Amino acid sequence: MNAAEFARRVDHTILKPEAGPADIDRLCDEALAHRFAAVCVNPCWVERCVARLRGSPVAVATVAGFPLGATTPGAKAFEAHEAAAAGATEIDMVVNIGKLIAGDRAAVVDDIWQVVRATRSANEKAIVKVILETAALNEAQIILGCRCTAEAQAEFVKTSTGFHAAGGATVQSVALLRKHAAPIRVKASGGIRDLATAEAMIAAGADRLGMSAGVAIMRELAAREGAAAKR
Amino acid sequence: MNAAEFARRVDHTILKPEAGPADIDRLCDEALAHRFAAVCVNPCWVERCVARLRGSPVAVATVAGFPLGATTPGAKAFEAHEAAAAGATEIDMVVNIGKLIAGDRAAVVDDIWQVVRATRSANEKAIVKVILETAALNEAQIILGCRCTAEAQAEFVKTSTGFHAAGGATVQSVALLRKHAAPIRVKASGGIRDLATAEAMIAAGADRLGMSAGVAIMRELAAREGAAAKR
Repeated sequence: MNAAEFARRVDHTILKPEAGPADIDRLCDEALAHRFAAVCVNPCWVERCVARLRGSPVAVATVAGFPLGATTPGAKAFEAHEAAAAGATEIDMVVNIGKLIAGDRAAVVDDIWQVVRATRSANEKAIVKVILETAALNEAQIILGCRCTAEAQAEFVKTSTGFHAAGGATVQSVALLRKHAAPIRVKASGGIRDLATAEAMIAAGADRLGMSAGVAIMRELAAREGAAAKR
Repeated sequence: MNAAEFARRVDHTILKPEAGPADIDRLCDEALAHRFAAVCVNPCWVERCVARLRGSPVAVATVAGFPLGATTPGAKAFEAHEAAAAGATEIDMVVNIGKLIAGDRAAVVDDIWQVVRATRSANEKAIVKVILETAALNEAQIILGCRCTAEAQAEFVKTSTGFHAAGGATVQSVALLRKHAAPIRVKASGGIRDLATAEAMIAAGADRLGMSAGVAIMRELAAREGAAAKR
């Protein structure tokens, strides 16, 4: 995979709460320079990113019910609608983890569907990614999460928030999502900090990678391509 | 301080995303048994707690913009209004940490005020606690957070979410809030796991303690009182 192909899979991400306007502007400028798929930011920065990226191919992604997933369906839908109306075209929502673990399938599907509906009502082309927080789930719960995502007609399943103590994406969790969610696409996120890990995630079936290390990985890729060209 | 006085300061808390209905019910029953001030739960559990605690002196507290504080003022206000309308009487919101660090005082005050207004519009007796995430801030930022809280007319400042990698409440942070927020009350939270720590927080000026270890600490207190009675 060359650098341009790789960049098209990257959601260039800052979700730490300390991030300020200068961090957000730099994120946008880096995403433009490297032609990443999207920037992924907290909701309070959506308007700023939409303004800065207007007319570019870089999408603005944001989060809903993040990172605990334990807000109400109404609150997640409000967040999704507000963000999509402001110009975000990708909404990464967190599933209701407690209700998923408890096996309350109806509640989990309704929670996702309310976000999907609210997002589309603001922008019918906007997409929803459903974060399962796979490191906190067992295999049966992950599979149920995939089924709920499909039933509620979201576009992606996503491994992790990057904030859970149990960890982020693993090759195993990505492969499990790929197997049980297809044809729904898969986003790997959480702890992807180098090229080898990123390529392993893609090999396991990740269509998109959420990470803050995108620029460093692009440098790794450029170095590898330069070394190959010299041979 | 005896056990009854101590219990009146405790917000009995479960905010981990894996919590399910059985955990929430047990939390409520423990709060009733020990006469804690409140239970503090994620928004998706407010209705369940309100139903279970109806007619009791135990309040239902919930969170807004939790734990990153980086949602929009409108989303935080939506969450607060929805929760207060459902019967929560205490809303623990997270300040916009990034904008506080950036010194954007107007944005921080507006963010808090929108939550205060939305909460009161649903229930004029409901109160708002403003979580500053003190471990992520320097002293000047903490003082600014106290001033913004006062300006926006919230009832409490609170140290921590319990989810930040930098840590939870310290005696120093509680004392700083006490000094700069008074007469606004102070809630200490994050990492309070034993009686000695809890009493140190109260000595430093905490009016309320947010913790999941309340039942264990009540046992410590009962043992101490039993030992004292035997002397």
